[in-house]
Amino acid sequence: MADPIIKSKQVQKEVNGISTEVVCTEFSNYIFVVLTQYGKIGTLISVTPDSRTNDISTPTFSTKVLLGKDEPLTHVCAKNLAMFVSQEAGNRPVLLGLALKDSSLETVKQIKEMVKGCQVW
Amino acid sequence: MADPIIKSKQVQKEVNGISTEVVCTEFSNYIFVVLTQYGKIGTLISVTPDSRTNDISTPTFSTKVLLGKDEPLTHVCAKNLAMFVSQEAGNRPVLLGLALKDSSLETVKQIKEMVKGCQVW
Repeated sequence: MADPIIKSKQVQKEVNGISTEVVCTEFSNYIFVVLTQYGKIGTLISVTPDSRTNDISTPTFSTKVLLGKDEPLTHVCAKNLAMFVSQEAGNRPVLLGLALKDSSLETVKQIKEMVKGCQVW
Repeated sequence: MADPIIKSKQVQKEVNGISTEVVCTEFSNYIFVVLTQYGKIGTLISVTPDSRTNDISTPTFSTKVLLGKDEPLTHVCAKNLAMFVSQEAGNRPVLLGLALKDSSLETVKQIKEMVKGCQVW
């Protein structure tokens, strides 16, 4: 049996007293990232880098809720959490499952560190 | 560190000469199953058991393409591959990533056996 093509990493940690799980899986066309404090897959969002580029702009991303509640905060949170993954993974889009009890900036910052520890790209 | 809440299993095998990967991950509200012969996450389909029940009918499922090409065969294939997972997992919906080069009945049958070997529910 060959090595698995699909790499996956997982980490669990208490963040601000809440058990938090991160699962990152690498596909050739997507990075799949689940951030959950409920054990649920949560709201499923695609975070896609826009192909338009021009010299003076910073990269922009489109977010789309595929499953679950479509709320403005979800898009903000998704971009904040997934943009760096996409950029580090050669501009691959990110499929993000988000089920957070606590979306405070401090929590999001700590969760980003957890994602960095699950680097599969 | 506690045991991870999220269980995941993965298997790779040649099916009809094509390298095939199966990844199954259990969430509390979904079973996530990827079946890929490209390393891609492929078409993303939700397969949800209908809540209506009556005594004389067999269970029915709704399929919805969340990402990728929405083709009739995709819905048929998704139901065929995911219904038994949902039923075995206490009627949880299945989130299915499907990227098959070969959707012949014989291949689908062998892939179903691979999924059974990745039981996380």
